[in-house]
Amino acid sequence: MAAAPSPPGLEIATTVAEVRNRVQAVRRAGGKIGFVPTMGALHAGHASLMQAAAAECDFVIASIFVNPTQFGPQEDFTRYPRTLEADAALCQQAGAHLIFHPASPEIIYPAGFCTSVEVAGLSTMWEGKTRPGHFRGVATVVLKLFNIVAPDLAYFGQKDYQQQAIIRRMIADLELPVTLRVCPIVREPAGLALSSRNAYLTADEHQSALALSQSLELARQQVAGGERHAAVISRQMCELLAATPLVETDYATLADPDTLEEVAEVTSKVVALVAARVGNTRLIDNLLISPPTAT
Amino acid sequence: MAAAPSPPGLEIATTVAEVRNRVQAVRRAGGKIGFVPTMGALHAGHASLMQAAAAECDFVIASIFVNPTQFGPQEDFTRYPRTLEADAALCQQAGAHLIFHPASPEIIYPAGFCTSVEVAGLSTMWEGKTRPGHFRGVATVVLKLFNIVAPDLAYFGQKDYQQQAIIRRMIADLELPVTLRVCPIVREPAGLALSSRNAYLTADEHQSALALSQSLELARQQVAGGERHAAVISRQMCELLAATPLVETDYATLADPDTLEEVAEVTSKVVALVAARVGNTRLIDNLLISPPTAT
Repeated sequence: MAAAPSPPGLEIATTVAEVRNRVQAVRRAGGKIGFVPTMGALHAGHASLMQAAAAECDFVIASIFVNPTQFGPQEDFTRYPRTLEADAALCQQAGAHLIFHPASPEIIYPAGFCTSVEVAGLSTMWEGKTRPGHFRGVATVVLKLFNIVAPDLAYFGQKDYQQQAIIRRMIADLELPVTLRVCPIVREPAGLALSSRNAYLTADEHQSALALSQSLELARQQVAGGERHAAVISRQMCELLAATPLVETDYATLADPDTLEEVAEVTSKVVALVAARVGNTRLIDNLLISPPTAT
Repeated sequence: MAAAPSPPGLEIATTVAEVRNRVQAVRRAGGKIGFVPTMGALHAGHASLMQAAAAECDFVIASIFVNPTQFGPQEDFTRYPRTLEADAALCQQAGAHLIFHPASPEIIYPAGFCTSVEVAGLSTMWEGKTRPGHFRGVATVVLKLFNIVAPDLAYFGQKDYQQQAIIRRMIADLELPVTLRVCPIVREPAGLALSSRNAYLTADEHQSALALSQSLELARQQVAGGERHAAVISRQMCELLAATPLVETDYATLADPDTLEEVAEVTSKVVALVAARVGNTRLIDNLLISPPTAT
């Protein structure tokens, strides 16, 4: 395997031992370690996570691993974009110090691997319904990466809202010695949330995909205007999405920010969640919304 | 709740924060931490684990927690022996420095707890067949305790052979930063493996329970005598058990020491596994056996 490209000042580790050695050296020197787990195909959203990490940590590690166990058999594992050279450049510019890029999936899943972590309930709703096993794959690989990297802080994007809720729950339940930071969604000027999967969109699909963030903005306006019935709001979100060509809605709803259970009334902070297929690409987006009177 | 008894030189912590503070102080001083997770009702087998820990670590932590999630609905959770005062004395004599005794199950399983760890395959064979969910409960609580205690080394008894195989696998799969030590089974002079559940046995049952270790010794003699057919050996083990009053055999078999898959021929080291109900008490025992020519 060819050596990975490594911009000046950025190390690339491909084995667990390399990461551990580096981490131990940083820790012995009293340094604080920040961690940004990714699947590569990095964009400004990932960069914002690394910048946040660089602002409060001494050493920033980004992992780049397209994790097979979080893809379903019909999903896009093989065609998921792999752009290591560009990713390394972005990591360096964003202030990362080391990329953990496992040389092969067997580094993470050696022969005989059979352990998995499940966050019940949270893992089977919303995205979990459409993607059975997805969050088991996510939770397991994140736990393993936490054990390898041993970060003080870990940075996740709010974009994958359910994912961060599951990781938060796992950290609390298992008393993992890591602090979770969730960073705001980075959007294109027109509102589309950045996603590695946006690369799959045609120009027309890209235009249609704006309906997701528009539906969230509609929900925000409804709540700001005094509407408290979640069903009324989610119906309007669905109508907006249904009126958009190329968009097939999976769900558009208002949920409790922690349990992700659907709410009936907007009496405190909620998260508006939306998922839709645009052409052949499944996209998700979300927005935290507080009613004006709620604290 | 009354303060727990604490023999001189032994600390008792009832919260996660207390344990963490103590561990951090030890670690800052460069000390090595050994950990012995238990459910209490301690005996000389547990003491041997703490002695082993004390021999190679600077600070030895034993946890005493009767873990509800590893008991089935029909099992002995409520009547499992709870003997904290005697346990504390034993811990002190065996060289432990701190007992982690969660003040309530909610310390380990607070409201909303929903994360679990599963070691597939290994968890559903042998004991897992009779005790569905048992090893999920074990793996989850051990992982959580590891995260709280952050030990350098953890000590398990060979007595619960399948348990240590599962913990070994979990440590490897998740890259947990802990080294597993497995200590020999401690037996009564007549051969019965020490177990907290031996306390349930009547005098007659105690006598009958010797059949378990006798069946293992029979297997060892068979292998030493040249027998290589596992089916022949396990049949003789079963016959010995069946000929013993009050004993109802669950399984008696020869298995691969790592995968626990049943073997057909004894060509290398095997583990003889036996489980039986003696009266109302389910007992297990095991013996590692190498054929004379195997390395």
